[in-house]
Amino acid sequence: MEHNLPQTISLLARTPAALNALLRDLPETWTLRNEGENTWSPFEILGHLIHGERTDWMPRARMLLEFGETRPFDPFDRWGHVREIEGRSLPQLLDEFARLRMASLRDLTAMNLRPEDLERRGRHPALGPVSLSELLATWAVHDLTHLHQISRVMAHQYREVVGAWSEYLGVLQCAGHSSP
Amino acid sequence: MEHNLPQTISLLARTPAALNALLRDLPETWTLRNEGENTWSPFEILGHLIHGERTDWMPRARMLLEFGETRPFDPFDRWGHVREIEGRSLPQLLDEFARLRMASLRDLTAMNLRPEDLERRGRHPALGPVSLSELLATWAVHDLTHLHQISRVMAHQYREVVGAWSEYLGVLQCAGHSSP
Repeated sequence: MEHNLPQTISLLARTPAALNALLRDLPETWTLRNEGENTWSPFEILGHLIHGERTDWMPRARMLLEFGETRPFDPFDRWGHVREIEGRSLPQLLDEFARLRMASLRDLTAMNLRPEDLERRGRHPALGPVSLSELLATWAVHDLTHLHQISRVMAHQYREVVGAWSEYLGVLQCAGHSSP
Repeated sequence: MEHNLPQTISLLARTPAALNALLRDLPETWTLRNEGENTWSPFEILGHLIHGERTDWMPRARMLLEFGETRPFDPFDRWGHVREIEGRSLPQLLDEFARLRMASLRDLTAMNLRPEDLERRGRHPALGPVSLSELLATWAVHDLTHLHQISRVMAHQYREVVGAWSEYLGVLQCAGHSSP
């Protein structure tokens, strides 16, 4: 299967609304608890998505188009969400993520990327040469990674109370694969 | 952590809207493809959720309260979704799931369950004695199992096109733990 930009955009456009419908006004048991030491709650994951929107996806796309492989992307700060969530409420984070994502997609659309642009390459600081097409596809799968993680973190809170059913519940068998 | 019924209901109430926000009018690449032979697409998973709403959760809750451990639940038909999806569109399934879930939660609320009711036991045909509390907690985690599965099935469609980034994307490392 090939990468298809309109398909990618249609997924990226829906993530804020999906997280909003799932998380807004949920009891904090679901949104503030994590899976144990050094793991993230849905609240922290939202902060990570916001931080990615500010520093990762569109900034890297612009850098790739400007510098090609001559300059590596700035490394992504995996703890950058700490600043994003400080003193904020979950509804504020949901609003901020929706606002930033809308702006990112407006900018992406305004780039009018042609198929040959999507083949252009930049340099990832650890992975080496990567194409714009791969960057944009990764952006969409990154959303799905964190939706996958949020559903797992929430399910973890009920791990004990489902009793004997736990063996039937796939999400409880997932050991957690997210580099958070 | 103990089971908390209002918390369970608040999650169950949000699943239809979350799936609606994620899936409605998405390109069919995302909604009709699966992970290979004998796996389910998001469209089929929706059919499974609808079938569960009709035959699993509230029917079992009623049966448990009526018969206790004397009569095992009817086995759940894991292929029951086939009838639910035949000739239907994805928007129709989303509407149907939302309608059925709302009716289930209206009935559940009308039961006015007391803490001692939640401790009552029924008999699962394979797992043996289970409590009403466990059944209702499982209903919520079952929603999360399928949200987890849907995000994984969608991510699978872009497995190749993310290039070298695939090693960083947790959802692509998930081998699939759902007994579908």
